[in-house]
Amino acid sequence: MKKMLLIGIGPGHPDYLTIQAIEAMRRVDVFFFLEKAGDGKGELIRIRREILERYVPEGRYRTFTVKSPQRDGSGAYRDGVEAWYRAKADLFVGLIQDELADGECGALLLWGDPSLYDGTLSILKGLLDDGPVAFELDVIPGITSIQALTARHRIPLNRIGEGIQVTTARRLAASDPEDITNTVVMLDSNASFRELAETDLTIYWGAYLGTEDEMLVSGRLGDVAADLAERALRAKAEKGWLMDIYLLRKEDSGD
Amino acid sequence: MKKMLLIGIGPGHPDYLTIQAIEAMRRVDVFFFLEKAGDGKGELIRIRREILERYVPEGRYRTFTVKSPQRDGSGAYRDGVEAWYRAKADLFVGLIQDELADGECGALLLWGDPSLYDGTLSILKGLLDDGPVAFELDVIPGITSIQALTARHRIPLNRIGEGIQVTTARRLAASDPEDITNTVVMLDSNASFRELAETDLTIYWGAYLGTEDEMLVSGRLGDVAADLAERALRAKAEKGWLMDIYLLRKEDSGD
Ligand SMILES: C[S@@+](CC[C@H](N)C(=O)[O-])C[C@H]1O[C@@H](n2cnc3c(N)ncnc32)[C@H](O)[C@@H]1O
Ligand SMILES: C[S@@+](CC[C@H](N)C(=O)[O-])C[C@H]1O[C@@H](n2cnc3c(N)ncnc32)[C@H](O)[C@@H]1O
Repeated sequence: MKKMLLIGIGPGHPDYLTIQAIEAMRRVDVFFFLEKAGDGKGELIRIRREILERYVPEGRYRTFTVKSPQRDGSGAYRDGVEAWYRAKADLFVGLIQDELADGECGALLLWGDPSLYDGTLSILKGLLDDGPVAFELDVIPGITSIQALTARHRIPLNRIGEGIQVTTARRLAASDPEDITNTVVMLDSNASFRELAETDLTIYWGAYLGTEDEMLVSGRLGDVAADLAERALRAKAEKGWLMDIYLLRKEDSGD
Repeated sequence: MKKMLLIGIGPGHPDYLTIQAIEAMRRVDVFFFLEKAGDGKGELIRIRREILERYVPEGRYRTFTVKSPQRDGSGAYRDGVEAWYRAKADLFVGLIQDELADGECGALLLWGDPSLYDGTLSILKGLLDDGPVAFELDVIPGITSIQALTARHRIPLNRIGEGIQVTTARRLAASDPEDITNTVVMLDSNASFRELAETDLTIYWGAYLGTEDEMLVSGRLGDVAADLAERALRAKAEKGWLMDIYLLRKEDSGD
């Protein structure tokens, strides 16, 4: 039997790795790296290579780098993602068939935690169900960017008894600001919080968390939104990409 | 200056610790253990002691164990929690004043991640703001029980583009099942999911995750709720306490 491991590596800093992830990495025969086109993302592969060098220095493993299929953003969002997932599924079938010998263990080092806004797990589960190739699948949890955000700001995600929402910038734009009590926004990178500058919300924002470029800003959205948007978009222009996350909180939810 | 560290240790298994948490533990002079009355929770202190023995074997630290104040459940929930937080705040002031010398570092080993349904961080932030005692505060993120749940079930938290809610059993009872797409329920231990057995939801349930007593169940709520409730409440009766978490998912949100 072949085995695939999805290993959560946390949101950037090698110290975010768990003992479980490190021990899993030491059992791996082949690490697959998915290279994203353009935009400086080579940095994300570099961080993964550093993690391997730091924690598996003896290096009894192979690495195999492939170009990641690109999402086609021209049509409807969901259609684009689904086509992109199918292309990735085909890629994984090929990798498991051709690059993994029987009895070997392959792995993908996934940013943050494998369960949070990362399609890899559902793609591999789909392959398990559909059966184009036989393998076992295991998942190792990782620190999420949500946990990195709250730790760096030293804030709880919610106050006594309150609920928490996690959403995307795309969904935020379509939702009612009145519904926000503690809302974490991911997959933005376009400073969508600007649209809420007139509300009474507080923002706790973080970018490139756990890396040398880490940025942290917090304050009433009305006070900080314009400045923060400028800083965020400037960083994005300079680096070529922006990875940011934020918590929006209603200061007194009276909840 | 004195320093307090809130260190997330993950939801039970020592392998969930991060390198950052382990390195932080090695800088600590005093670990404070809060002992909870009754209910077999001595086990939670035992796990923390094992973590210390495993990762800081040289043992250049003191430990200090105190009885944790108890929440009074007789009145309104929020009032009970607020009084409980005030009692804990007084306790922490005493510990920092009396048990920590100047320049020393104290720590609390917090279950899971410090930002998720754990009052300690907001209590200590309150002390920083109000100033009854001077100290620095740092937070080290941990794997949450949410991440342990999804990893053990090998499921993503959400499907393409969907939002995620995290809530308590108390809030779930007051909410509309129609609003559920991907809802994580915490702080239950009374099998509240039974109330939703008539809905079309799927449940991914886990108890004592990462420990020897781990239990995992998933399925359509209508099919599994009765049986699962029985198993959960039996485990609770046998062990004296139940620590469970679950994801409720609308199978086709059409979202
Ligand atoms: C495709 S999702 C993957 C999330 C990841 N699985 C996790 O657990 O954090 C990428 C999004 O996560 C957030 N993110 C991940 N790492 C981050 C970091 N180091 N700093 C800020 N945001 C981060 C951003 O919102 C980004 O758009
Ligand atoms: C007071 S909250 C603390 C949560 C913790 N800070 C975290 O990040 O998971 C306790 C609740 O977390 C969940 N929980 C924590 N550890 C768990 C475990 N090992 N197995 C199942 N549920 C757990 C349960 O819902 C429990 O009622």
